[in-house]
Amino acid sequence: MGPPAFDDAFVQDLDTLFAWRRDVRRFRPDPVDEASLQACLAAAHRAPSVGNSRPWRFVRVSDPGRRAAVAESFARCNAAAAAGYDAERAAQYRTLKLAGLKEAPVHLAAFCDGATETGLGLGRASMPETLAYSVVGAVQCLWLAARARGLGVGWVSILEPESVGAILAVPQAWRLVAYLCVGHPVEEHSDPELERHGWQPEDKRGGTLVER
Amino acid sequence: MGPPAFDDAFVQDLDTLFAWRRDVRRFRPDPVDEASLQACLAAAHRAPSVGNSRPWRFVRVSDPGRRAAVAESFARCNAAAAAGYDAERAAQYRTLKLAGLKEAPVHLAAFCDGATETGLGLGRASMPETLAYSVVGAVQCLWLAARARGLGVGWVSILEPESVGAILAVPQAWRLVAYLCVGHPVEEHSDPELERHGWQPEDKRGGTLVER
Repeated sequence: MGPPAFDDAFVQDLDTLFAWRRDVRRFRPDPVDEASLQACLAAAHRAPSVGNSRPWRFVRVSDPGRRAAVAESFARCNAAAAAGYDAERAAQYRTLKLAGLKEAPVHLAAFCDGATETGLGLGRASMPETLAYSVVGAVQCLWLAARARGLGVGWVSILEPESVGAILAVPQAWRLVAYLCVGHPVEEHSDPELERHGWQPEDKRGGTLVER
Repeated sequence: MGPPAFDDAFVQDLDTLFAWRRDVRRFRPDPVDEASLQACLAAAHRAPSVGNSRPWRFVRVSDPGRRAAVAESFARCNAAAAAGYDAERAAQYRTLKLAGLKEAPVHLAAFCDGATETGLGLGRASMPETLAYSVVGAVQCLWLAARARGLGVGWVSILEPESVGAILAVPQAWRLVAYLCVGHPVEEHSDPELERHGWQPEDKRGGTLVER
């Protein structure tokens, strides 16, 4: 089979997908279809990786005790973060919903296996951080595959990465890159929630090429 | 306008896109259409970012002197990397084509603006690395948007990030995340080049969920 050609309709739909991807924090309790979840994982596993190392390790967190412990890590970090703002901003911060850990039917923790020998270290001698970057690419593919299937994903970064590793009893060499909530979204938007709720104005700088 | 629904044909084509995305190192000399490039940049600018910080800064490198200096950084790093393997692997390493810097009509350097105040630091107090991760998400969106338009992207990580920042005269707070070659590919594949050329076997571990 030869390489595929993508038509204009696909390209336009793909742009729509980018626009409506969004970070989701409000989930319906309905379960996620297992075949859809596995298809999202397959998309993640197609992501580019430095030296083809494929260092991503996805952990599905179903145990209620482990989930509760992760939610406690979030609560600690979130309280500390709020305390770092001045009074007015802190009050606004506390009104934001920054995670859907309690509602989301599926929790996926994405780790980077720092001990992997796959790829023999190729491509990362001068920029070792590209190993973790590879996991981010996998998360991004999973996210787009999920949204195309009507699922929402929320990336929770307000966590203690070492605590989450310990809670999930993963190997020492695995470093948390992302903790993802997955489920059917309550609402859908094409604008970022933090702009919609007045936390910040839109930053357009990254949308323009710098010429050198 | 309400949220879009994506049909089965789109979902299937999206999976094909993930499979045929690939890292490209062999480019035809034909120029890249400016409208297509800008559409890819727009896709990148739709990426998720921590605290909606949008810290990506894309630099188009057109100046021949700067391009040559980047290629020299690659040559230095690549020679050092080869020297780190034993004789047999080093010989194999030297046969691999790991970048298309000389052929690619477009060079894009993706930086993370560590000094951005957009988002007021939200979401990254406990995992500050998520700022750079946001740039990786943008690169991933750009890559998929490019491949859908028949363009190939190659991520060059065999570089000295500080040197590239200096060569491109960007602000001190900008850290190199990815250096991308963009152009029309000479050949297209759905399997990773490093597997095809015998550098390594396929690593399937990341394609299976770990249960906790």
